[in-house]
Amino acid sequence: MSMPLTQGVNAQRFWSTIERSAEIGRGREGGLSRLALSDADKEMRDVFVGMCRDAGLTVKVDQVGNIFARRAGLDDSLPPVLLGSHLDTQANGGRFDGIVGVMGALEVVRTLNDLQHVTRRPLEIVNWTNEEGARFSPPMLASGCFAGVYGLDWVHSRQADDGAVFGEELRRIGYLGSEPVGGRELDSYFELHIEQGPILDAERAQVGVVTHGYSSHGFLVEFHGETAHTGPWPMEKRRNALLAAARLLVDVDDIGWDFAATDGKATAARLSAWPNKAGILSDWAQAICDVRHDDPKAADVMAERVRRAVGVAAARTGCTAEILDHWAWGGNIFDDELISLIRRHVTAFGYRHRDLASQAGHDAYFLARICPTAMIFTPCKDGITHHNAEFAGLGDLEPGLNVLLHSVVSRADR
Amino acid sequence: MSMPLTQGVNAQRFWSTIERSAEIGRGREGGLSRLALSDADKEMRDVFVGMCRDAGLTVKVDQVGNIFARRAGLDDSLPPVLLGSHLDTQANGGRFDGIVGVMGALEVVRTLNDLQHVTRRPLEIVNWTNEEGARFSPPMLASGCFAGVYGLDWVHSRQADDGAVFGEELRRIGYLGSEPVGGRELDSYFELHIEQGPILDAERAQVGVVTHGYSSHGFLVEFHGETAHTGPWPMEKRRNALLAAARLLVDVDDIGWDFAATDGKATAARLSAWPNKAGILSDWAQAICDVRHDDPKAADVMAERVRRAVGVAAARTGCTAEILDHWAWGGNIFDDELISLIRRHVTAFGYRHRDLASQAGHDAYFLARICPTAMIFTPCKDGITHHNAEFAGLGDLEPGLNVLLHSVVSRADR
Repeated sequence: MSMPLTQGVNAQRFWSTIERSAEIGRGREGGLSRLALSDADKEMRDVFVGMCRDAGLTVKVDQVGNIFARRAGLDDSLPPVLLGSHLDTQANGGRFDGIVGVMGALEVVRTLNDLQHVTRRPLEIVNWTNEEGARFSPPMLASGCFAGVYGLDWVHSRQADDGAVFGEELRRIGYLGSEPVGGRELDSYFELHIEQGPILDAERAQVGVVTHGYSSHGFLVEFHGETAHTGPWPMEKRRNALLAAARLLVDVDDIGWDFAATDGKATAARLSAWPNKAGILSDWAQAICDVRHDDPKAADVMAERVRRAVGVAAARTGCTAEILDHWAWGGNIFDDELISLIRRHVTAFGYRHRDLASQAGHDAYFLARICPTAMIFTPCKDGITHHNAEFAGLGDLEPGLNVLLHSVVSRADR
Repeated sequence: MSMPLTQGVNAQRFWSTIERSAEIGRGREGGLSRLALSDADKEMRDVFVGMCRDAGLTVKVDQVGNIFARRAGLDDSLPPVLLGSHLDTQANGGRFDGIVGVMGALEVVRTLNDLQHVTRRPLEIVNWTNEEGARFSPPMLASGCFAGVYGLDWVHSRQADDGAVFGEELRRIGYLGSEPVGGRELDSYFELHIEQGPILDAERAQVGVVTHGYSSHGFLVEFHGETAHTGPWPMEKRRNALLAAARLLVDVDDIGWDFAATDGKATAARLSAWPNKAGILSDWAQAICDVRHDDPKAADVMAERVRRAVGVAAARTGCTAEILDHWAWGGNIFDDELISLIRRHVTAFGYRHRDLASQAGHDAYFLARICPTAMIFTPCKDGITHHNAEFAGLGDLEPGLNVLLHSVVSRADR
């Protein structure tokens, strides 16, 4: 059975799921603080699993807590079309980031149920664990494991600032599943997401066709120095690791400004030091920073400048430095066929749209390593995100939902 | 009864108290990590109180946990001569900082007991609570309260990074005493301390006669920005409070270097931010920094430059800034008569000595506001302090102990 071109999702029903989610793990006014594997995350997962079961889906959880809710296809032996995102948020997060992609996937299935439309290939809705990295570092931890980038034991051993261990927290909230992580064939992966930038909203575009990702480089840098008294110890003998990390972060910001005219960005994201107290120099510090640019070559230059800045920060402070981790993502990772499919449906609906790059990291980046992958962006007010004021109205989201519905069905029915 | 000029303390007995202290709250190899109001601090206090009682002293504890161990004078109605320091340490602290001053005071009393020498004025040994500020900020919290600079309720409400509250911790370890804090007349205050700088050791001087304190200015600065995504958010819209604090600390270090030729120092001591995570800009940060110079006018210039740097850091990052606290100490605060007294005894013993300034903060700085105060410095190896390698041998300490004994007795017997 084919689907009429004008068939849309049940927008009000979708909105009710966003509102239900907005009650769980409330943060600052209007926002959410639903950190991965927290009690609030457990509550949200329970609610989500209940919704999936009510929609007739078969729910399975893998060994890193990723939730898969499956709808059988006419030929259920074929690899599934996967669609979803994540339900965790930043400490000062919004109600839409990630959640729209998961609840949108659920709405796609509910709509197909209404239409009694069974796709040829099976569909699976996914909620990825710890996308934000707001509690356990790095971000996109569980989709990275699914894609074979991170080992299972390593993921389970990740530790939060509060001392909690990923594997233990997963067990505590009841989401340490038995399914193996990844290692199975997928037909494709679709992720609907708010843009998290100001472009669509400013241009009043209804849908963003994501063509590629900004080339991005992230760094975890560690400095070692020596404790000493903050008073009498001569300037030339000081080896203050906190200062080394601060110098690096300032230099990283300067790199961002040097590339700002071409929309490059650089971020001083995190600084930890020990003992980090009045009266004593710190002998240990870590910094997390990143650089991003639409042009991969420019991004490489920015990354090289960060590496040099690490050396300079260490040299100027008498500390030693080590880049403990470097992660790179973005580029032309998305599948041309899926992008064309999405563009075709956007056009069929007559939505105002534009091509654009994703500037944030997403689970889709890891999925793109193992199957054809695409993203659909929706506008969000003024591009504000990772902030309790993050907002997208139903009118902002409905076009993207409809495009997701039709793109997924086209793909699954082929 | 007068005391022979050559009478010294029992150095071995003194050393045994240093060794006993070194067993309590062990940190890294050879060092201590005995944070204020921790279990280790309680254990040390219990041991110290036991030692004082064994020496026939009357122990009283005030409402901020300061311990006073009194030895009656021939005319016990006269204001007491106070001598002591602090038993708490930094997180990576040494075995001598502060401890030498308290155990040295105890040894003075024990020696007087041996000699059956009762001074005209009463003596009181003191252990000040939370001198280091390594757990509760600011440093010298309880001597500041004793001197009337900090209010009792404010001190009790100070919170540690681990969430512990000063007043509650004081009660928990059994040292919330009933004595009023300060408000009583003191004859004088003597504090023996390791130099915490390299000068005496380098010059092979046995005793430092402390003439004054470096003029120092400390600042607690708070920045407010806005959370946002570290990826798509344009550079020109960013208001990253973590970056503002990092910029300030780098500028502070530069100020230190500008004055290094005249032995000025500036310190980036502490940076805290929230959420301080990969993926999100921080909307809150605090920084603690200080500047110090022997010349008060130069110190004023350095402090003014810090204030300007606060404004620049805020302006360059789109944040708002507020100096929440500013503390200034040092200058010609010590009592000329006591300094002369100390110098007289140093000369009588024939010790190699030199005048010098104190560059660190000490409880004596607050005491100097309410009574004649002086400090005696001893060498420490290479000036290393606030580090587990901090070391002073008995030979380094004995001259200072003998000078303390005679200075205190001269003062108390007058």
